[in-house]
Amino acid sequence: MTTERTTQHVLAPAGLKNVVVADTTTGDVRGEEGFYHFRQYSAVELARTRSFEDVCHLMLEGTLPTPEESADLQARLADASRMPHGLLEVLLDVARSGPDRASLARLRTAVSHLGAVESFGPTYGAPAEQVRADVLRLVAVVPVVQAAIHRLRAGLEPLPARPELGAAGSWLWMLRGEEPTEEHRRAVTAYLTSTVDHGFSASTFAARVVTSAGSDVASAVCAAIGTFAGPLHGGAPDRALDALDEIGSPDRAREWVRERVGAGGRIMGFGHGVYRTTDPRAALLRDIALEIGGPLVDLAVRVEEEVVAALAELKPGRELHVNVEYYAGVVMELCGIPREMFTPTFATARVVGWGAHILEQSESSKIFRPAARYVGPPAPAPLPT
Amino acid sequence: MTTERTTQHVLAPAGLKNVVVADTTTGDVRGEEGFYHFRQYSAVELARTRSFEDVCHLMLEGTLPTPEESADLQARLADASRMPHGLLEVLLDVARSGPDRASLARLRTAVSHLGAVESFGPTYGAPAEQVRADVLRLVAVVPVVQAAIHRLRAGLEPLPARPELGAAGSWLWMLRGEEPTEEHRRAVTAYLTSTVDHGFSASTFAARVVTSAGSDVASAVCAAIGTFAGPLHGGAPDRALDALDEIGSPDRAREWVRERVGAGGRIMGFGHGVYRTTDPRAALLRDIALEIGGPLVDLAVRVEEEVVAALAELKPGRELHVNVEYYAGVVMELCGIPREMFTPTFATARVVGWGAHILEQSESSKIFRPAARYVGPPAPAPLPT
Repeated sequence: MTTERTTQHVLAPAGLKNVVVADTTTGDVRGEEGFYHFRQYSAVELARTRSFEDVCHLMLEGTLPTPEESADLQARLADASRMPHGLLEVLLDVARSGPDRASLARLRTAVSHLGAVESFGPTYGAPAEQVRADVLRLVAVVPVVQAAIHRLRAGLEPLPARPELGAAGSWLWMLRGEEPTEEHRRAVTAYLTSTVDHGFSASTFAARVVTSAGSDVASAVCAAIGTFAGPLHGGAPDRALDALDEIGSPDRAREWVRERVGAGGRIMGFGHGVYRTTDPRAALLRDIALEIGGPLVDLAVRVEEEVVAALAELKPGRELHVNVEYYAGVVMELCGIPREMFTPTFATARVVGWGAHILEQSESSKIFRPAARYVGPPAPAPLPT
Repeated sequence: MTTERTTQHVLAPAGLKNVVVADTTTGDVRGEEGFYHFRQYSAVELARTRSFEDVCHLMLEGTLPTPEESADLQARLADASRMPHGLLEVLLDVARSGPDRASLARLRTAVSHLGAVESFGPTYGAPAEQVRADVLRLVAVVPVVQAAIHRLRAGLEPLPARPELGAAGSWLWMLRGEEPTEEHRRAVTAYLTSTVDHGFSASTFAARVVTSAGSDVASAVCAAIGTFAGPLHGGAPDRALDALDEIGSPDRAREWVRERVGAGGRIMGFGHGVYRTTDPRAALLRDIALEIGGPLVDLAVRVEEEVVAALAELKPGRELHVNVEYYAGVVMELCGIPREMFTPTFATARVVGWGAHILEQSESSKIFRPAARYVGPPAPAPLPT
């Protein structure tokens, strides 16, 4: 960084890229290695072997739970998954607002209202247990609220959570109103679990900035949801799947990809801001998709191969790997999640990570108040008369 | 900053203090000089001589308006101040939620719902005129919504805006249902105008982080509102006034102040994170309070003198000056604004500044994605069995 203006000011690179804004024990993303971890454990290994609730405990309490702690957390989450008193009336209005793609705007309103109805207090000066309880409330209720809005939009009655099915099973149940298969439940568990956190993404950073002012958990999560809705954030697996629909069958893959790459067009589901290797989440979800199998999986694998081959041939040096959105969309489609609920599924998982960062940030009392460099005309200028 | 971890990573000071995260033409705060400006003009001079709408034009269009531009902006703001279709039903529920002090949580819900109802689109890729129109919609409607919630909570009918009275006059009218005096209208105009913006405060920074992902204006303003609600943000002039109530009369000022300062207690309304001099906003508002005059003003001036004297005597070297909250509270009380509407009054003004920053940020496409330093146990650790 360059020193500028006065000796105390330093210029940061655009977007604060590679600028360390906090110490964290939540985990890390090692882009060059294609590796990420939650606390000290490999996130992919956790996603393959642990329940969503166990990873929730890890992120929010700092440790993997003992069997007793696990049962205790399950009970607390079940209790916290009840529809908030008086929220359903507002959800009827919320459900009517905006187009399908505005699911995150609707969730933002619901979380905001919940925060007011239940009087979420400032994180500043609050005991960690209180902050954690507010986080758990949102972790448990965000899927319930999102599924309720989805069903209300379809003219159906919302369904209560089924915590005994686990987070993934309950989510599939609330969306579809039928008991999920064990295969789907396991696949969605792996997706949700692997998606819980991913370093200081813009949504996570926004949640931390809000928390740094001592604000409540609902304020911070609203900010994260609003950031996550931005087209530059990523996390929209439906877009990658739309491309697969367009291609239609494996024998058309080669031609479609070469046309697109040749014309310099962007291929949704490829490339990532941090990873310089295959996104480890994509590798995990490809394996899960292959275990389920079927024509969509064959198509997806074929298109991935064609994209990689076409890039190597037509754009040597421009190495782009498949990212999480691509196979996340495939897995969710295989498990019968409606496409407009792909992003809400992501939000259902990520609220755990936002919560872990809010908890950690609330332990620091240093407000984020950066500086800027004024580059306008010299001030004060005389006022025009 | 220290280089750490890998050669590309740099450690920023806590809270990004003095780290320049953007170039801006919106203005600047020069803490050592006790001076701040909007664009290239002294903010205090603007507050003394210009209408709120003129300053709005300056912040959102970049220039002070010609008479024609001024008339045009007035018309656009009047048009944008209509109550959004279908919002009143939700406001009935919103008004019932939370205690008096949760006014910002209620505003956050209303803005969030408005953003969904009116399908605010991403700022990313949007023409500046669209982003500006969304900002103007919020600038115009935020006071209407806040006043409506206030009246609904009191069991009264909401009142429509009266744009012909100017922003301050319309605000006083909507809160109280009576025509404000010219003196009150001018005082509140100066307060609102001086409060429009103040550098990269945490709420402004949060709005910019959200915008950097390409999100919509409502998402960014929701994040700013949520940040602004934090006790570390400042901007709660009711707290300073509560202390004046407690003191009650000028002859008790000396004793109260000395007891409080002697015991090391914090005096609300004194000290600021950036100014090392008298807060220029406090000086402006003190003058305005003195023009109106009365027992509360005598008390406030006397308490200020006693605090400064007591600090100089009892805590030499710990120089604390009066800040904006102190005299803002006095001015609002003099103008008959109910105390629970002090913070909403601040928000009514500040949404202009947030809007100017959202507009500026939307012209950059660099997402804020900082780094963090992982300080937990080495990863990957083997999973416990």
